[in-house]
Amino acid sequence: MPVGTVGTVKGMTMDAVRSTGAGIVLGNTYHLMLRPGAERVRKMGGLHRMMDWPGPILTDSGGFQVMSLGALRKLDADGVTFNSHIDGSTHRLTPESSTRIQHALNATITMCFDECPALPATPERLAESMELSMRWAARSREAFVPREGYGQFGIVQGGTERDLRARSVRALTEIGFEGYAIGGLAVGEGQELMFATLDFTTPLLPERQARYLMGVGTPDDLLGGVERGVDMFDCVMPTRAGRTARAYTERGTLNLRNARHADDLRPLSPHCDCLACTRHSRAYLHHLFRAEEMLGPTLLTWHNLAYYQRLMRTIRAAILDGTLPDLAPRLRAHWAAGDWTEDEFPQPIPPPVP
Amino acid sequence: MPVGTVGTVKGMTMDAVRSTGAGIVLGNTYHLMLRPGAERVRKMGGLHRMMDWPGPILTDSGGFQVMSLGALRKLDADGVTFNSHIDGSTHRLTPESSTRIQHALNATITMCFDECPALPATPERLAESMELSMRWAARSREAFVPREGYGQFGIVQGGTERDLRARSVRALTEIGFEGYAIGGLAVGEGQELMFATLDFTTPLLPERQARYLMGVGTPDDLLGGVERGVDMFDCVMPTRAGRTARAYTERGTLNLRNARHADDLRPLSPHCDCLACTRHSRAYLHHLFRAEEMLGPTLLTWHNLAYYQRLMRTIRAAILDGTLPDLAPRLRAHWAAGDWTEDEFPQPIPPPVP
Repeated sequence: MPVGTVGTVKGMTMDAVRSTGAGIVLGNTYHLMLRPGAERVRKMGGLHRMMDWPGPILTDSGGFQVMSLGALRKLDADGVTFNSHIDGSTHRLTPESSTRIQHALNATITMCFDECPALPATPERLAESMELSMRWAARSREAFVPREGYGQFGIVQGGTERDLRARSVRALTEIGFEGYAIGGLAVGEGQELMFATLDFTTPLLPERQARYLMGVGTPDDLLGGVERGVDMFDCVMPTRAGRTARAYTERGTLNLRNARHADDLRPLSPHCDCLACTRHSRAYLHHLFRAEEMLGPTLLTWHNLAYYQRLMRTIRAAILDGTLPDLAPRLRAHWAAGDWTEDEFPQPIPPPVP
Repeated sequence: MPVGTVGTVKGMTMDAVRSTGAGIVLGNTYHLMLRPGAERVRKMGGLHRMMDWPGPILTDSGGFQVMSLGALRKLDADGVTFNSHIDGSTHRLTPESSTRIQHALNATITMCFDECPALPATPERLAESMELSMRWAARSREAFVPREGYGQFGIVQGGTERDLRARSVRALTEIGFEGYAIGGLAVGEGQELMFATLDFTTPLLPERQARYLMGVGTPDDLLGGVERGVDMFDCVMPTRAGRTARAYTERGTLNLRNARHADDLRPLSPHCDCLACTRHSRAYLHHLFRAEEMLGPTLLTWHNLAYYQRLMRTIRAAILDGTLPDLAPRLRAHWAAGDWTEDEFPQPIPPPVP
């Protein structure tokens, strides 16, 4: 899911997002409640209408972002009071108000309001936090208005502790949700520990409901997540990297600010059908970033979203064919091999000017 | 002509520029020679190929921009030596090198290298400068390589002095160009003096060749220019205004940062078919600018270019119908009337969410 924090996937029109093959995007409750405000989004006809995205939209609950505010927030059993990063004004989120706000935004998939502790943390702190999140999950479910075509996901917490994750899954499945997210990962524990946690968590989840790993990740994280039974991901990586001149390709990443691209007439990737790859050279993209032109971030974001979507399509096809075990090591070997040489991917002759 | 200074119309993909109806865009010799460099553009297949614009491209000669550098440049009879605004490095432009660079860029329309004095200026200074520009025009023509589908425009100088403008036109038409530009205006003299200068300059120009008023202007400037016989214009106004939240409409300009748009569900204009007007509300555009999201400048630039193109199409149609004398006062009255009231242009009901 491309991330559309405040009602826009940064640097992209929604037509451009659609063209990458994306079917669902994410919005952020925390950002949208502060600006333009949930009630204002509702008056605009909801988030779909406001941002011009007719497909499904998942909204996070604000829990993760509020926790990231550190000293600016105060937690109690009922919810969280925090200060806006924009103007310092005081706001409060509870399971009930977060759910109500997501309803006002018209989120297709509403997320439970949870507490997300940073890792590493003591098992005691993780247990306490998970238990609080489970009580909040029950209250979030209570506040959710079930309706055709809409759903709510519970969020499994418990850090890297196997028994806590198991207890969390039991608590959530007892309540019953349309899908289940795995929260509290990609918060500093590293890929190895994240995968180890997935290894014992995903088998506990209902097989026929969506599993969503929150805030993940690199192409390699996505592949490893799918191998461990995850269906959905969201991450700012492809969009944020695009704005900072980093391109994801089948052969690892490229930094387009690097002088080695200044005269390279090749597109970013020979396999990509995005606007950047079908119409422009690396040399032009390098120029746009050197000149600090908005089109550089736009084209690279476009490319990265197209790459992420293509990667997921490839993985999905391999699952259906039963060939994921063959595909996965090939993908990893290609990422590790580094950029195509000129022999592997020759300089194209520029087409004649019309 | 939308302005594509360094090989991109700021904030826009070329598909977006095309969708506004633009048929020709402008590039800047000064900017492109410094970055990415003329030779590099040539290696990329020329400016059309580099920026993905198959239609005609007009390049200015660098004369105007170099003159704007003030203390950073030194003028002699042969050309101008100047320091780059990027890194201070020393460069030189002459009529020959400017023409050669525009050839390397593959400009469809090459402009003569001229000197453009700021106004007001003494008649002596204007005469001297005009005579220099005319000698440079002859040298620019000499350096130009005539070829099918390409042309070169001379630039009429002489400030606001009638006899100087007449002498300049004579000098240029004696040399003979594919079209004629009127330079040295919109440099501080005000609209009245600009129109007065056009009144005595355009009648001197060959009737069946294009006339291009450089660096102009507001919608009202364009209308007044056409009424005085001008065919072509270029200006950063629609693009620059778009990046600073200002929208041009049939009813004057709007500042989208203004709080009065925060809950306005209407599009910018009821007459516009651009992406901003067909899919988004003023309230959303206001939000994008408040949140400093890139999509705000993109959508408003898109709208402004669409408005400028629509204005010129409307004017062209009126010329063909012989109704420009009726249209012009109506356009001016509407610009002066200010934004549509809610009665004139009711709030649309947001369409249902799919």
